[in-house]
Amino acid sequence: MQYFEDFAVGQKFASGRLIVTATEIKDFAASYDPQPFHLDEIAGKDSLFGGLAASGWHTAALTMRLIVGSEFRPAGGVLGFGGELVWARPVRPADELHVESEILETRLSQSRPGQGIVKVRVTTLNQDGDIVQTFTPSLLVPRRPA
Amino acid sequence: MQYFEDFAVGQKFASGRLIVTATEIKDFAASYDPQPFHLDEIAGKDSLFGGLAASGWHTAALTMRLIVGSEFRPAGGVLGFGGELVWARPVRPADELHVESEILETRLSQSRPGQGIVKVRVTTLNQDGDIVQTFTPSLLVPRRPA
Repeated sequence: MQYFEDFAVGQKFASGRLIVTATEIKDFAASYDPQPFHLDEIAGKDSLFGGLAASGWHTAALTMRLIVGSEFRPAGGVLGFGGELVWARPVRPADELHVESEILETRLSQSRPGQGIVKVRVTTLNQDGDIVQTFTPSLLVPRRPA
Repeated sequence: MQYFEDFAVGQKFASGRLIVTATEIKDFAASYDPQPFHLDEIAGKDSLFGGLAASGWHTAALTMRLIVGSEFRPAGGVLGFGGELVWARPVRPADELHVESEILETRLSQSRPGQGIVKVRVTTLNQDGDIVQTFTPSLLVPRRPA
């Protein structure tokens, strides 16, 4: 577990890997993003994606699962206010994803004593090393108790 | 269905409503964001959330479900490159969510003839009218065929 004081600009944290299946892509889409190109191979082929593609929100959710299991373990959990989210490439069936997190900025919180803000760039990559998503959240991280 | 030419700055689109349950909050978290404050009432109470709280990614996914069923129906689907995502307040069990989408900007795509870019502010609100999330994506929307 890492406290605010343990983070410094430039530090990088790796994650494990997971493989995305067509079934998972369709199940997530049926629940949260029921558009034809996320639900059906043929509709995907006829769309701008050129094939079945995961919802961007599925990519984001899988990224979170990888972060929570990664070397990046702020004390108090991974708690964010949001940030800039960019979907660079679609995620497709059988893609293997992993995440690289890099600390961009650290500062004390003005409004919450005992807490700091850590800005991180979270990059999600596929098995070819292509970036599929970047997310740049600001996280609330507790200071080390005195 | 709306083509690029049908969108103008200031237009607003409403969604239906959905109620979030504790079971759904925990199920989503178990799959995608397995942190104690999203999985367990007592752990939630002991956290900064002060009670069981939905993963921000669950809020985002539910927002997408509301958008896909809303009056906002760009031809070709809701297809975005990403945008700024802000979690303003936690979503809690029994919250009833709805979404308001407002067109912020429209312009032709430089790289894709036949397509335009529509920037939208998507605001997710609870039953008290409190904003729980804002997302400001740029979407790819086809021009009306000649």
